[in-house]
Amino acid sequence: MSAAPFDFAPLLPAGLPPAAARWTGRVKFDFTGGNNDADSLPLDGLMAAADAVLRREGRTLSTYGLDSGPQGYRALREFLVAKLKTDAGIACTPDDILVTSGSLQGLDLVNATLLARGDTVIIEQDCYQGSINRLTRLGVTAVGIPLDRDGMRVGALATALDDLKRKGIRPKYIYTIPTVQNPTGTILSVERRQEMLRLSATHGVPIFEDDCYSDLVWSGKRPPAIYAMSGHGGVIHIGSFSKSIAPALRVGFIVAPWDVMSRMLALKTDGGSGALEQMVLAEYCARNFSRHVPALRRGLRAKLETLMESLNEHFGAAAEFEDPKGGIFLWVKLPDGVDTEKLYQPALAAGVAINPGAQWSVDKAHGRSRLRLCFASPSHEEIHQGVAALAEVCRREFGVPAQTKG
Amino acid sequence: MSAAPFDFAPLLPAGLPPAAARWTGRVKFDFTGGNNDADSLPLDGLMAAADAVLRREGRTLSTYGLDSGPQGYRALREFLVAKLKTDAGIACTPDDILVTSGSLQGLDLVNATLLARGDTVIIEQDCYQGSINRLTRLGVTAVGIPLDRDGMRVGALATALDDLKRKGIRPKYIYTIPTVQNPTGTILSVERRQEMLRLSATHGVPIFEDDCYSDLVWSGKRPPAIYAMSGHGGVIHIGSFSKSIAPALRVGFIVAPWDVMSRMLALKTDGGSGALEQMVLAEYCARNFSRHVPALRRGLRAKLETLMESLNEHFGAAAEFEDPKGGIFLWVKLPDGVDTEKLYQPALAAGVAINPGAQWSVDKAHGRSRLRLCFASPSHEEIHQGVAALAEVCRREFGVPAQTKG
Repeated sequence: MSAAPFDFAPLLPAGLPPAAARWTGRVKFDFTGGNNDADSLPLDGLMAAADAVLRREGRTLSTYGLDSGPQGYRALREFLVAKLKTDAGIACTPDDILVTSGSLQGLDLVNATLLARGDTVIIEQDCYQGSINRLTRLGVTAVGIPLDRDGMRVGALATALDDLKRKGIRPKYIYTIPTVQNPTGTILSVERRQEMLRLSATHGVPIFEDDCYSDLVWSGKRPPAIYAMSGHGGVIHIGSFSKSIAPALRVGFIVAPWDVMSRMLALKTDGGSGALEQMVLAEYCARNFSRHVPALRRGLRAKLETLMESLNEHFGAAAEFEDPKGGIFLWVKLPDGVDTEKLYQPALAAGVAINPGAQWSVDKAHGRSRLRLCFASPSHEEIHQGVAALAEVCRREFGVPAQTKG
Repeated sequence: MSAAPFDFAPLLPAGLPPAAARWTGRVKFDFTGGNNDADSLPLDGLMAAADAVLRREGRTLSTYGLDSGPQGYRALREFLVAKLKTDAGIACTPDDILVTSGSLQGLDLVNATLLARGDTVIIEQDCYQGSINRLTRLGVTAVGIPLDRDGMRVGALATALDDLKRKGIRPKYIYTIPTVQNPTGTILSVERRQEMLRLSATHGVPIFEDDCYSDLVWSGKRPPAIYAMSGHGGVIHIGSFSKSIAPALRVGFIVAPWDVMSRMLALKTDGGSGALEQMVLAEYCARNFSRHVPALRRGLRAKLETLMESLNEHFGAAAEFEDPKGGIFLWVKLPDGVDTEKLYQPALAAGVAINPGAQWSVDKAHGRSRLRLCFASPSHEEIHQGVAALAEVCRREFGVPAQTKG
């Protein structure tokens, strides 16, 4: 049979995102994405875990959900119960936890359970691009709250909630990344967590706590999770193993009260999240997580030092940033004349990939001269060279940083 | 802080599915779901594959998408290119393949790319529950085409397409499971595949070919995929490793022309599908797939024999069925007086889980006295005992099968 090529275009519904471009390979100096430090991957431990768990109970892979049902591998949920208690102060049971295919599926399930087109939510003004884009796609209005060194400004949050109330709008949630905020690297103070909970209760607006970077606080000491501090149960908490172990293992989790968990579970029609990855993580983490993470943090902190030194060396005063409290990224302010969305393509042509700030903020003007630089994946040498190359492109395109070096 | 428990109910949008029930453990005689034969799981091979692939390239887990980009692990796509050529006659390249988190994500991506509320699609009258439920949730009308021993009746398909055309309706796709249809176990003949393609071209309606059971044809000989036979490119093909290797490994794939692939890829915002499972499958399958699958089929065929014998023994003429061409399920007709949705709960109370036919058909009256029995997961002994227990419950509730044994 032969015929003119079938044309799918007339069948596509309105509102689809633009077509994806073909992938052209990894960039030489990649400062984007949540990629992690390959040298810190606990490969021997993961291999030993894979062997042990498969040998012991590998045949359960023949069953959807193993022998654990739709909320995920029981041993992984049991590890999380212990970890969340120790690290985040959360008291929960395995029944309060839903293992997801990365915390991105957590975002999708929370959104699908609570949001309809035309709804309003509150988020941090500078915020994870994936969260912003999801809201845009869903036709949901995101009201951004500015941040300072202690995270979301709760005075501004109170004002926004009052303003919305006057307009008869009840936001569906307050979304926050309180512990190593993306992209600012700030940590919401305990006092602000208390105030946020008070506002949540007063206004009947739940808090959606995205804790996926919270293992990477340099000091090893984090405030209790908002979920743990809540007396009213109106908090949904999500987390991930992407930053603590490996992002290509797509394993995250949701902690939530059953009345909302049971609705999310009804929407999780994926036949379960990948079981082998859950099994290997559970087996590895139960014995090694608390030893692995501090070593990972030390490696990341060293790369951050390299990045900050490189920026100081090549950009000088033109690059402003706060030393983040943890994480894998630095939020950098360039002079007002620089538009980082216009820097993106020339930088890419020079082999340097960056995240333009306007894509990581609901206030495009605020984000315009900012950028996010992820430092976990490139080597120290690549960080040095990449920042030098970026400075050269930026100078050529925008005249900053000024030529000061000989 | 303490307060009345937060009430999420006022925040839930209209149209959510009912809350999920808490999982209460596996059923003693489970004839539901696509669970596979645990004894046929190639555990040693998977363990060896995990060890080899992690040792060789495990550190790539630190990067989203490994070194392969958003369409999935390159080595797995290369295996699929070879397998699809040999088994299904499909000529494609790794760029034509998108690895998904099970074929269920394939269903979701195809639906999200092509469907809007109010649309119409054509499907087989008796059909996979997960496909029917997705369409219901999306507010899409599913026009069911009856089947016979050679699969979808293409005369009825032609009539339906003409009827819709007269009403000014262009269906978004023709969904078919042509090679071991779920639940009927039929195989669409080559002549019907040709006629379906002709109708597709004439009416400008693409074919959505779900081939996830096609490895399990008893004879080992399957017709070429509709995708392979198409001269116009208007076919989207999906498949899975759930039935050939293990369902808890959530790995499926889509084969599609780039103009629609690029739209699906833009909607796949999950950070990639689980990489460890892709790596292990690629490593295992490249060496062992063609040897493993015939052994698996022999084991499944033996269980089917046990199931048919047990039905003949305990139900006699009350249970009518065709010997399926392959797969893991049997589609059984009970006497008209039996309502299998009403049989479900008493059977469950007796430790027997079944799929009521009305949930596997868009014609509820047609499905009413039918049920689907999956035979891959229970042991031969469990099949015997489970069918005996089911017959006893059915006799008590509906008076059939008549008491004939001694």
